[in-house]
Amino acid sequence: MPVGTSGSVKGLTATQLEEVGAQIILANTYHMHVRPGEDLVRELGGLHAFTGFRRPFLTDSGGYQVMSLSALRQRTEESVVFRSHLDGARLELSPERSIEIQMKLGADIIMAFDECPPFPASRDEVEDATLRTARWAARSKRAHTREDQWLFGIVQGGVHDDLRKQSAGAITSIGFPGYAIGGLSVGEPKEDMVRILEVMDRALPEDRPRYLMGVGTPEDLLDGIARGVDMFDCVLPTRNARNGQVFTWAGKLSLRNARFARDASPLDPDCVCPTCRISSRAYLRHLHLANEMTGAVLATLHNLFFYLDLVGKARESIVAGRFETFRQETLEGFRA
Amino acid sequence: MPVGTSGSVKGLTATQLEEVGAQIILANTYHMHVRPGEDLVRELGGLHAFTGFRRPFLTDSGGYQVMSLSALRQRTEESVVFRSHLDGARLELSPERSIEIQMKLGADIIMAFDECPPFPASRDEVEDATLRTARWAARSKRAHTREDQWLFGIVQGGVHDDLRKQSAGAITSIGFPGYAIGGLSVGEPKEDMVRILEVMDRALPEDRPRYLMGVGTPEDLLDGIARGVDMFDCVLPTRNARNGQVFTWAGKLSLRNARFARDASPLDPDCVCPTCRISSRAYLRHLHLANEMTGAVLATLHNLFFYLDLVGKARESIVAGRFETFRQETLEGFRA
Repeated sequence: MPVGTSGSVKGLTATQLEEVGAQIILANTYHMHVRPGEDLVRELGGLHAFTGFRRPFLTDSGGYQVMSLSALRQRTEESVVFRSHLDGARLELSPERSIEIQMKLGADIIMAFDECPPFPASRDEVEDATLRTARWAARSKRAHTREDQWLFGIVQGGVHDDLRKQSAGAITSIGFPGYAIGGLSVGEPKEDMVRILEVMDRALPEDRPRYLMGVGTPEDLLDGIARGVDMFDCVLPTRNARNGQVFTWAGKLSLRNARFARDASPLDPDCVCPTCRISSRAYLRHLHLANEMTGAVLATLHNLFFYLDLVGKARESIVAGRFETFRQETLEGFRA
Repeated sequence: MPVGTSGSVKGLTATQLEEVGAQIILANTYHMHVRPGEDLVRELGGLHAFTGFRRPFLTDSGGYQVMSLSALRQRTEESVVFRSHLDGARLELSPERSIEIQMKLGADIIMAFDECPPFPASRDEVEDATLRTARWAARSKRAHTREDQWLFGIVQGGVHDDLRKQSAGAITSIGFPGYAIGGLSVGEPKEDMVRILEVMDRALPEDRPRYLMGVGTPEDLLDGIARGVDMFDCVLPTRNARNGQVFTWAGKLSLRNARFARDASPLDPDCVCPTCRISSRAYLRHLHLANEMTGAVLATLHNLFFYLDLVGKARESIVAGRFETFRQETLEGFRA
């Protein structure tokens, strides 16, 4: 899922998002709540009508942004009180309030309000947040009344196998149409993430979509898919594009690199995205160095196409029963 | 002609430029010379191949940007020596050098190297620049050897009718396939511009395209067309779009205006541009206030479509023999 934080994937139109094959995008509840506000979005017909992107939306619960972006947080069992990163206004989010906002925003998939412990954190802190996440998940489910939306539960538990199993048990007991794995890719070692994904693979029901939140690199996606993950969101393809970092089947490349100055070839010779069909590395490097907005747009189109192409090909290889071969070949390509 | 200063119309892809109906775009010789350099552009196949925009290009001569952007200029009869606005490097432009650069860039229409006097300037200064512009036009023509490019001459003369007539005589005597009117819209009163356009209308041959450089507002375009002008370039539609200023058939509007906060209508109910087909004023206002790049892109698409629609409809009305009616009705619409 490309990330459209404030109601747009930075630099792209809804038409371009469809062109690169985005089937669903994510919008951030915290950002949309702070500006322009969920009441305005609802009045204008919800996220689809407001943004012009007619395919599915997912909204997160806002909990992660409250912890990472806002100042002066105060968390109780009831709610989190915090100050807006924009104007310092006093705001409050609780399971009920997050669900109310998400119902007004009108995404197709919405998320339970959870508490994501920081990394590192003591085991007690993680356990406390994990138990609260389960209680808040139950409150989220009770608050959710729109039948045209799916509400997903979120599993926490940090890097502790037993807490993860306990959390998965608690969240699946409440029962949701899909489950998210939260609290990974927050700074923990890669081997911890992979081990927890294996714990989750065994603990979560096979017949419900699994969503690994905020992940990640192309390698991370393949690691997740290998352990049963179905959905991802990450700002990496879009943010890196704006910084001149491009993903290809032969690995990452930086547009700042002088060896591309006169390179007439496309970013990726194997890519058929709108950018690679028209633009050379030399042109994209020039636009990036000249700080031209079009450079960010073209690189974003490419990176999103690449990510969506990667998961599309992974899906095909699963259907064909050859995912592990696909994964190994792809990882070898990245290293080349 | 939309302006693609450094080889891109800010925020748009070549595909989007074609979608809004751009038949030709302008690139700035000064900017392309300073970065990435004309040799690189030539090596990559010229402006069309480099940028991916396959329709015609026009390049200006660089003279205007040398005077407006660079530091520490020194102008002799031979050339202008100046320092790059990017890194202070010593650079030199002359008629021969400007034409050489423009031949390497490979635009379809290129411009003679002229001297545009500032406004206000003494009559002596304007006369001096006007006479030099004629000598430089002759040198530009001698230096130009690419038969697949048109070289246009530029008329100067400030706001002085007699100098304008004298300049038109000198430049048309040298002989070019098209003529530009330079040195207007540089701060002079509107009535001076209109009067000079009337002088130019009588002084320039009817069977060659006339290009009013750096102009202007929608009203200015209609004023120019009424006096026989065929071509314009201006950053107004693109720059204003990035600043949240939008042009419509009912006049200008500012996206900052609070009355658009919940306005579900498109920017212009009479517009069929890619933006108006999908996006509301409320959404565009939100993106503008949130400083989202997509807002600049969508407003740029609209403003360029509006400008190209305006001149397209003006052209149709000329063919139908009802331009003056079209102009009056359009101006009334703007005032409404």
